[in-house]
Amino acid sequence: MRTQVGIIGAGPAGLLLAHLLHLRGVSSVVLELRSREYVERRVRAGVLEQGTVDTLVEAGVADRLLREGLRHHGIELRYGGAGHRVAFEDLVPGRAITVYGQQEVVKDLIAARLSYGGDIRFEVEDVAVHDIGTASPYITFGDERLDCDFLAGCDGFHGISRRAIPEGVLTEYERDYPFAWLGILARVKPSSEELIYARDDRGFALHSMRSPEISRFYLQVGPDERLEEWPDERVWAELKARLETVPGFTLATGEIIERGVTPMRSYVAEPMQYGRLYLAGDAAHIVPPTGAKGLNLAVADVRVLTEALARFYEDGTTDLLDGYSETCLSRVWRAQHFSWWMTTLLHTFDSDDAYGRRLQRSHLDYVTSSRAAATTLAENYVGLPFDRP
Amino acid sequence: MRTQVGIIGAGPAGLLLAHLLHLRGVSSVVLELRSREYVERRVRAGVLEQGTVDTLVEAGVADRLLREGLRHHGIELRYGGAGHRVAFEDLVPGRAITVYGQQEVVKDLIAARLSYGGDIRFEVEDVAVHDIGTASPYITFGDERLDCDFLAGCDGFHGISRRAIPEGVLTEYERDYPFAWLGILARVKPSSEELIYARDDRGFALHSMRSPEISRFYLQVGPDERLEEWPDERVWAELKARLETVPGFTLATGEIIERGVTPMRSYVAEPMQYGRLYLAGDAAHIVPPTGAKGLNLAVADVRVLTEALARFYEDGTTDLLDGYSETCLSRVWRAQHFSWWMTTLLHTFDSDDAYGRRLQRSHLDYVTSSRAAATTLAENYVGLPFDRP
Repeated sequence: MRTQVGIIGAGPAGLLLAHLLHLRGVSSVVLELRSREYVERRVRAGVLEQGTVDTLVEAGVADRLLREGLRHHGIELRYGGAGHRVAFEDLVPGRAITVYGQQEVVKDLIAARLSYGGDIRFEVEDVAVHDIGTASPYITFGDERLDCDFLAGCDGFHGISRRAIPEGVLTEYERDYPFAWLGILARVKPSSEELIYARDDRGFALHSMRSPEISRFYLQVGPDERLEEWPDERVWAELKARLETVPGFTLATGEIIERGVTPMRSYVAEPMQYGRLYLAGDAAHIVPPTGAKGLNLAVADVRVLTEALARFYEDGTTDLLDGYSETCLSRVWRAQHFSWWMTTLLHTFDSDDAYGRRLQRSHLDYVTSSRAAATTLAENYVGLPFDRP
Repeated sequence: MRTQVGIIGAGPAGLLLAHLLHLRGVSSVVLELRSREYVERRVRAGVLEQGTVDTLVEAGVADRLLREGLRHHGIELRYGGAGHRVAFEDLVPGRAITVYGQQEVVKDLIAARLSYGGDIRFEVEDVAVHDIGTASPYITFGDERLDCDFLAGCDGFHGISRRAIPEGVLTEYERDYPFAWLGILARVKPSSEELIYARDDRGFALHSMRSPEISRFYLQVGPDERLEEWPDERVWAELKARLETVPGFTLATGEIIERGVTPMRSYVAEPMQYGRLYLAGDAAHIVPPTGAKGLNLAVADVRVLTEALARFYEDGTTDLLDGYSETCLSRVWRAQHFSWWMTTLLHTFDSDDAYGRRLQRSHLDYVTSSRAAATTLAENYVGLPFDRP
């Protein structure tokens, strides 16, 4: 079996890459370990940057996104007994975020791929990549062999792609945070129209949503927190303690339909390519979820990779392919810094002394009182334009 | 002997307070341990915020400052082999900094005080404050006693004023940095018209100046660096290594006429008042010199204290005096954060891992490519307006 680009992983990165390549006349096969049902139900991020929405619209896969996605023009920073709105419409006119679950993006992309006759293989076993340093790489899975011109590793942080790169090639940059996020999905109308990022002495809390009927919440918890220690009553009591801190705000509660613990980690592998293998999304870099950048970075990588591959097939030039990693990494490191910045701005750190806590408070006061400082948050949150790092 | 306000310390804070009080009809006596010659020659900061200059102009003590001060409309951030100008005239129109040595401000203030018959006592011994918790505080020095309505502690970080406040009253916030600044004054024309803040793998370096003939330089060095380990040749070699990193830039060298090591420390005492004793400037708070905020914060404190004391003498109300500490501290903490921010942005930290170094680089790239981020630097550097934190 033969294709032009062999794509490992049917998450948003792999699926979008397959679709964007198709629109440029490049063939691909997508290989995924999990079932279609699994990837369509996997709860992940839910905040799309302006440029991510634009990309999906241009690719013709945004009908439902535009119908059901919740367009937000601001977020609230809540601390010290008051809420402070960061108003995107004022600070970064014309740019906004759209709240739409990652699994919904995945559903839309799978449907689009299949309607165009795209080749996605779910539940494949024993995937391995071979000869990635040569011009004739190939993938084996089950009893099959897929010969390719290029390979795209879109299989996430724990995938096989990055680990197939020979030892010594990659430089890895890493930081772990001394806490995790407990995330829940609840069947209850959101208590606020916009997202609330709350910094409280008890720890960070985030009020978010997926739809007018489904709310999404996160709580800063210990790094090795066990789900069984968080019965429903404790979850709601803690959310209330951290969010009901401004006059007149009451948190509506409901049935908890999903829960999980997300570790907080920063990670970058450089370069994002080796031979004919190109890494995209979480396979190459991880950010803590505070800045909502993970999915959006994957989309940015895929845009760059599509253009580079399409150019190669158009005129045989490899300059964009050669520069893939460098092009992506300037945006990756911007997002790394922003995600670290949002995380340190809003979480409590046991290691912080009294000076550190006052510094954090001063920083929050600055972000909510200086137009320039608020704009740095807003422009990163809605996403910098693709032509800028 | 009796006066309305007994002022301890003839640095810029104490002298300016005496002068501003005089203009509002309030009498004072300034007590200083050192000689007039000593305080007039003590080399300290040299960057005046817009608001500091405005204050000195309004107080009528800025004739020489306006004549000899060097007005700068930008600074350069130098790293990664390139220079990046932060253009105040574009980012914060109408606001700029003025390069003018602190000891020149001190000379001008002493001359002004004496020309108005102001009472400054130099080289006083055994200064002590008494009954500061009562309405009749007094100061003793040598064989004399000075009865006052109020006391102003303007005697710096190591002065006696703050230590006279009873144990348990103050909360102290502190952070030490794992490096110091080696500062030199050299008889040589500045090699650049504007200040250069250079981040280099060898450590931070600052190119500054005092006049068209005198340059001022700083080098990041170890926390316990000994001056004798820095002969002239080593100082110049290190400055060249850290500053001659962009094409076409050559550092002019000359006779070194002053040198010293400045520790890098952040410190705040809260509240800045007890009973009838009010602390101003370094007596209450210290910042690392990176943001050039020390002198400027002292001036801001003194403005607030003058208004509060003058109001008391005008109509007997104490609300401004009662709120003195709170009013000052919002600006103090803003400056604390900015100074920490500039320091971490530009210095090398042995404790930083590879991830931390890339984060710093990404941050620098952001500050030099985003208008909003550059504006946060510019607005803090030239100084936020006095009606804002």
